[in-house]
Amino acid sequence: MTKPFRIAIAGLGTVGAGAVDVLARNAELIAQRAGRPIVVAAVSARNKNKTRSIDLVNAEWVSDATQLPDMPGIDCIVEVIGGAEGAARALVEKALAKGISVVTANKALIAHHGVALAKLAEEHNATLAFEAAVAGGIPIIKSLRDGLAANRFRRIAGILNGTCNYILTQMQNQRISFDEALKEAQQLGYAESDPSFDVDGIDTAHKLAILASLAFGSAPAIDQVHVEGIRAVTLRDMEFAHELGYRIKLLGLAEFTPQGIVQRVHPCMVPESSPLANVHGVYNAVVAEGDAVGSVFFEGRGAGAGPTASSVVADLMDIARGTTYLPFTLPVSSLAHYGSVPMAHLACAYYLRLAVIDQPGVLAEVTGIFRDCGISVRSFLQHSRQPDASVQVVITTHETTEGAMTKALSAVAALATVREKPYVMRIETL
Amino acid sequence: MTKPFRIAIAGLGTVGAGAVDVLARNAELIAQRAGRPIVVAAVSARNKNKTRSIDLVNAEWVSDATQLPDMPGIDCIVEVIGGAEGAARALVEKALAKGISVVTANKALIAHHGVALAKLAEEHNATLAFEAAVAGGIPIIKSLRDGLAANRFRRIAGILNGTCNYILTQMQNQRISFDEALKEAQQLGYAESDPSFDVDGIDTAHKLAILASLAFGSAPAIDQVHVEGIRAVTLRDMEFAHELGYRIKLLGLAEFTPQGIVQRVHPCMVPESSPLANVHGVYNAVVAEGDAVGSVFFEGRGAGAGPTASSVVADLMDIARGTTYLPFTLPVSSLAHYGSVPMAHLACAYYLRLAVIDQPGVLAEVTGIFRDCGISVRSFLQHSRQPDASVQVVITTHETTEGAMTKALSAVAALATVREKPYVMRIETL
Repeated sequence: MTKPFRIAIAGLGTVGAGAVDVLARNAELIAQRAGRPIVVAAVSARNKNKTRSIDLVNAEWVSDATQLPDMPGIDCIVEVIGGAEGAARALVEKALAKGISVVTANKALIAHHGVALAKLAEEHNATLAFEAAVAGGIPIIKSLRDGLAANRFRRIAGILNGTCNYILTQMQNQRISFDEALKEAQQLGYAESDPSFDVDGIDTAHKLAILASLAFGSAPAIDQVHVEGIRAVTLRDMEFAHELGYRIKLLGLAEFTPQGIVQRVHPCMVPESSPLANVHGVYNAVVAEGDAVGSVFFEGRGAGAGPTASSVVADLMDIARGTTYLPFTLPVSSLAHYGSVPMAHLACAYYLRLAVIDQPGVLAEVTGIFRDCGISVRSFLQHSRQPDASVQVVITTHETTEGAMTKALSAVAALATVREKPYVMRIETL
Repeated sequence: MTKPFRIAIAGLGTVGAGAVDVLARNAELIAQRAGRPIVVAAVSARNKNKTRSIDLVNAEWVSDATQLPDMPGIDCIVEVIGGAEGAARALVEKALAKGISVVTANKALIAHHGVALAKLAEEHNATLAFEAAVAGGIPIIKSLRDGLAANRFRRIAGILNGTCNYILTQMQNQRISFDEALKEAQQLGYAESDPSFDVDGIDTAHKLAILASLAFGSAPAIDQVHVEGIRAVTLRDMEFAHELGYRIKLLGLAEFTPQGIVQRVHPCMVPESSPLANVHGVYNAVVAEGDAVGSVFFEGRGAGAGPTASSVVADLMDIARGTTYLPFTLPVSSLAHYGSVPMAHLACAYYLRLAVIDQPGVLAEVTGIFRDCGISVRSFLQHSRQPDASVQVVITTHETTEGAMTKALSAVAALATVREKPYVMRIETL
């Protein structure tokens, strides 16, 4: 057997420890498939004395992660510290500048600094791999780069955040509010004590920017992602969705349009028959639409030690085998830089929920506004009338533009008969 | 831009013409991603004068496909003639023996002669790629080889034949018989005039043997696949399945057991909530269960010009980029050769449909047999009693062995009160 592939792991949290575990457990099989053994030569983490269930006796302990690339004979650095800046960024930059390949699970780092890092990798003949950064164990990065590479992509969309999908699933199944579902997710360790990174859609935006880059051959453009989280989704919306034959999912969607790439993260209604509607709990899923292949759907665990380690170790095996690839499929100099497409140009069908005073003529007022904005109403629903209470009314539209919908919405919100701020959700068929 | 990658295509049916089309349509994008243009230098097909919608003016026409490897400057042969023997086999053997890489969509060839061909490829430093041989556009071969390579697989299962899935979907949705659904599939071009290769499960068996080989690091063992087709599935079974919360799918399943690899193709009941239950029409799907990643699900079009071409061209791009890999992930000398596991050892839950004379005591007789064979009954269903007619009775069991079930079945079949041959279907949860 040829020379072992020596790696250094920076970060021994869930992902780092998971990778050490998989490398040990499947060592023989991994060596066979990669053509050489993969050896953990060094590790670095904040707390050396923390009890860990993994065996690190043969690995050198380095207290400063950024010193790992200075060690002799390291073939690859695994960066699983996290965060777009700080030690993670410094470590990856230093390693690549020294020609040492890097495997990372760090979506924030890749979404924000991916192009600069890919350029460093190119200049120094190193590989930068990040399968674990998006959708955990689902091999979506490699599939876009290799298995589906013959396609011109029209759209890529996915459920990319397990925390949000868990919360939405529980709201739907247990008929509980967002706050209750979030609390439960926090108790189970699926959500952080400060959940904003997940529930406000930022994590999904990072992952979407990376997927869009690979699918469309463009530089990741995280600042061009329109982001809305799931805090405003109510149990009432869940019930209306059910009644209309939809489920509510937080999707990241990137579409190629003549104006450029539209990237957006927001809650959506998707038809119950859509594969995305049937992705439950902490699972992730991705739909890629290519001109040759049509629609391909991937589903798997989006987080956790095992699934993330599966992707980290797969990247290590690629590099150990000598497979080289460009991080974003194209040389950095060839990556397209598309301008931002205003959301007003988006063509979509919409769901609108209104609280109105239950008196004759309200519907005529609202539908009159829709008519004036050129929006065609598809369905109308009104929930149980209660005397002296406001009534929940739901309107769904045929495809229209976001611009027309925004205009209609402000006119509707200004009506004296409309009680609360109207809530709008986009309806996606995929 | 570096030297073009020159290919010769043998076979200009749906797949061959589809590949030419995708290579032309996405030429620029493919050249960018592969690092060099892919040029169709030569083609071969039975009928030169057939009208085709593809442009072949720059390709040399070779009437005998087996002469393609003799042409100077051919980097890769695309074999899409089909069939395990004849011209396809002769061409692939000749090309590999000359050190010319081969991309094929030919599952029969790989299932039957894959090891010998992989050995030839190894000996002559050529690559043998066959992503298009299994599940059309779904990049499942590459995912097993690369993206999920860190995993020890427990099981791999899938809906691998679009014709069968179309027929079963139509039986279920339109409430029509197998014969009616087959006729419809034939009229739409989804089934051949002699449909046995598809409906008797042979095509699925070829694909399953290839998937099992990649997942378990073993030589494809097509002769060890237990195969049952879908001809015996009745509309009545569809109705009972619906009542019990299942759907009927033709699955290929390969499981790693202490006794070896169990490979089987047969109709199954799968829970309605399973992603496999929701794969409709001509779509294919695969579930891979790995020790690190858990369960990963893939769904996409399993046949047709575009999806198959997507996989063929992806393989070409890999080879054009210089990526090399072993066809079955391991050197041929390292491939395991597992013995056959008798189906009697299989542990499974079962569905049993009986036509019985409607008289007291029949159920007691049947359940007595189950008790004597150590089989625990899970549910019992009896459809509308009609005077003087036989009654359809369905029994589902908890997990038992195929051996116990076979024993019970022959005892049940021998009862005087049982009218027709009992029909048994396995129940799979995945």
